[in-house]
Amino acid sequence: MEFDPTEHQHLRYNPLFDSWILVSPHRCKRPWSGQVEKTATEEVPEFDPGNPLCPGAIRPNGAVNPKYESTFVFTNDFPALLEDVPEPEKSDDPLFQSAVAKGTCKVMCFHPKSNVTLPVMTIDEITTVINAWIDELKKLGAKYTWVAIFENKGAIMGCSNPHPHCQMWASSFLPSDPRIKDINQRKYFEKHGEPLLMHYAKKELENKERLVLQNEHWLVVVPYWAVWPYETMILPKRHVQRFTDLVDDEKVTLADVIKRITTKYDNLFQVSFPYSMGWLGAPTGEYLNQDTRHWVFHGLYNPPLLRSATVRKFMVGYEMLAQSQRDLTAEQAADKLRNLPEVHYTTTNQ
Amino acid sequence: MEFDPTEHQHLRYNPLFDSWILVSPHRCKRPWSGQVEKTATEEVPEFDPGNPLCPGAIRPNGAVNPKYESTFVFTNDFPALLEDVPEPEKSDDPLFQSAVAKGTCKVMCFHPKSNVTLPVMTIDEITTVINAWIDELKKLGAKYTWVAIFENKGAIMGCSNPHPHCQMWASSFLPSDPRIKDINQRKYFEKHGEPLLMHYAKKELENKERLVLQNEHWLVVVPYWAVWPYETMILPKRHVQRFTDLVDDEKVTLADVIKRITTKYDNLFQVSFPYSMGWLGAPTGEYLNQDTRHWVFHGLYNPPLLRSATVRKFMVGYEMLAQSQRDLTAEQAADKLRNLPEVHYTTTNQ
Ligand SMILES: O=P(O)(O)O[C@H]1O[C@H](CO)[C@@H](O)[C@H](O)[C@H]1O
Ligand SMILES: O=P(O)(O)O[C@H]1O[C@H](CO)[C@@H](O)[C@H](O)[C@H]1O
Repeated sequence: MEFDPTEHQHLRYNPLFDSWILVSPHRCKRPWSGQVEKTATEEVPEFDPGNPLCPGAIRPNGAVNPKYESTFVFTNDFPALLEDVPEPEKSDDPLFQSAVAKGTCKVMCFHPKSNVTLPVMTIDEITTVINAWIDELKKLGAKYTWVAIFENKGAIMGCSNPHPHCQMWASSFLPSDPRIKDINQRKYFEKHGEPLLMHYAKKELENKERLVLQNEHWLVVVPYWAVWPYETMILPKRHVQRFTDLVDDEKVTLADVIKRITTKYDNLFQVSFPYSMGWLGAPTGEYLNQDTRHWVFHGLYNPPLLRSATVRKFMVGYEMLAQSQRDLTAEQAADKLRNLPEVHYTTTNQ
Repeated sequence: MEFDPTEHQHLRYNPLFDSWILVSPHRCKRPWSGQVEKTATEEVPEFDPGNPLCPGAIRPNGAVNPKYESTFVFTNDFPALLEDVPEPEKSDDPLFQSAVAKGTCKVMCFHPKSNVTLPVMTIDEITTVINAWIDELKKLGAKYTWVAIFENKGAIMGCSNPHPHCQMWASSFLPSDPRIKDINQRKYFEKHGEPLLMHYAKKELENKERLVLQNEHWLVVVPYWAVWPYETMILPKRHVQRFTDLVDDEKVTLADVIKRITTKYDNLFQVSFPYSMGWLGAPTGEYLNQDTRHWVFHGLYNPPLLRSATVRKFMVGYEMLAQSQRDLTAEQAADKLRNLPEVHYTTTNQ
């Protein structure tokens, strides 16, 4: 029997994390009798005076939002990271180590209207969001080592407010995941003289099997080592280390790929597609004065849906205690996404 | 201001994974307006002829279950791991590495009745389950490198059938998580001459702050580095490397701690408490002939609920792309669990 990746289970290596994942494509055949998610049935209203993220609304802490007409950034009223906290005592015991964590958390609303998500925004409006991300990274990155910019979209992804927004958590420390990525990208760079993700992007552009879309400056792929069913990565064609390195043209073309990939996502199951997404690049703070050429700026989308708008992939049991496992190949997912229309399903008459 | 771990954010180190987690206890104060889970409102019937896990029922592949009266083990009808698969081709490219994965997946029903979960089983019945786990580990471990024994409980944890059962996935490879644990436990053993988790158990028994319960042979703690709100670890007092090393007395006392911790869990929010749990010990297969003294057999419970039977902790955005984060300290969680009654809420009249 010849090996067929769409039929036969195998392992794939993730060089960013130096870890493996299990691909079991034959598993898509099993019937599903487990949990079925609610789909967001109620339409989100354009404006809801009781929603603390809306223009002019009152937030739980009494602050009143301005009547903003574009993006709107404020400090999270219930931040996981505060700037001014006492330090824990040092301990000599290797099993009970704690360390100081300082930081700040911000929220950014993308648009004044609660029902305008990224795929239905104009390229101009998305470019405004990109500029706001870059502004924040500049400000927060001057002081902090890591600025996590991420969007939790959909109640199923722990998003507690339907108004389109993202969060920015800036910290005095390099969190675990980027720390591991820093180590592995550095090793690769030292060995091969080229950044891991630049090398990777080039090969995906040649191979095309996992390529979902591209434009002048960017490509979107389902990574060879993807974990989530329809996970994608946005990569630059030029070596960009950080969000702050983008030139104006690259911002506009980034807006284009954001609009196109989120539109495809919504079209996949004809639903406002839930995900956690984030922007990752070279660390900031003290790293701004260091050699970080091994880093490549990239975006990551981790969407949970697997079979339909209501059946998700659960990362539990085996995945939690042993190793990530997926039920369709990266190539199958890329093929599906690539062939989806780039016109949002709510705006067509079909 | 003096440092108070129940008030002030800090980082904690997980020596098993060589990683850090962010503890933000002040975050429990934020209001929650996000997703609310369904609680399992319908009672599970004792017997349902349409449920493929029940005694005498017909499974989707046509097989008929025996009229089992105790535990019942069979090969998963839709296994993620098969024994006989062709090998992927070798590649020289460090960015596109795949490897062969062989294995088998089994399912074990704990009890003939669908409404009898572990906390309401007798010590004898739980001991029977423990013996069945050990039998399976002996058989599968003779051939396979890793046997993941895990229970996904509750629809919220991806469990697709309410009949109390667990799974066993045996593989020809050492999955990523145990591989990292193997490396870090080995390093610790080489440096300190004692297994990491034996050292750890001793200190938790002295300190008592994170101790939930204990008996002659076992203790249950909320690990210092716990990620899930009410995560716990079952540890032996004697150095046991694998499930198969237990003597008869230790099986009965293990049944006792399983009954007590799962009862406390159900009592916490007066609901059949969802979790993913697993048993971990030294690898098997070719490792059976190697020195694995750095390994300590242990059990892990990862339960998602945070505030109530319907409000869970989401591991999204920051946790997915940066670092694990928790909203109450391990000591606060241990205190809560320690003080809960050990009589199941459904069996008392209060
Ligand atoms: O085999 P089950 O119980 O249907 O499936 C469940 O457990 C598996 C192992 O943790 C996961 O891969 C699945 O996502 C989950 O739904
Ligand atoms: O701050 P939010 O949006 O209410 O909270 C959400 O995102 C956070 C960061 O990923 C997570 O820690 C929370 O579990 C999640 O519910």
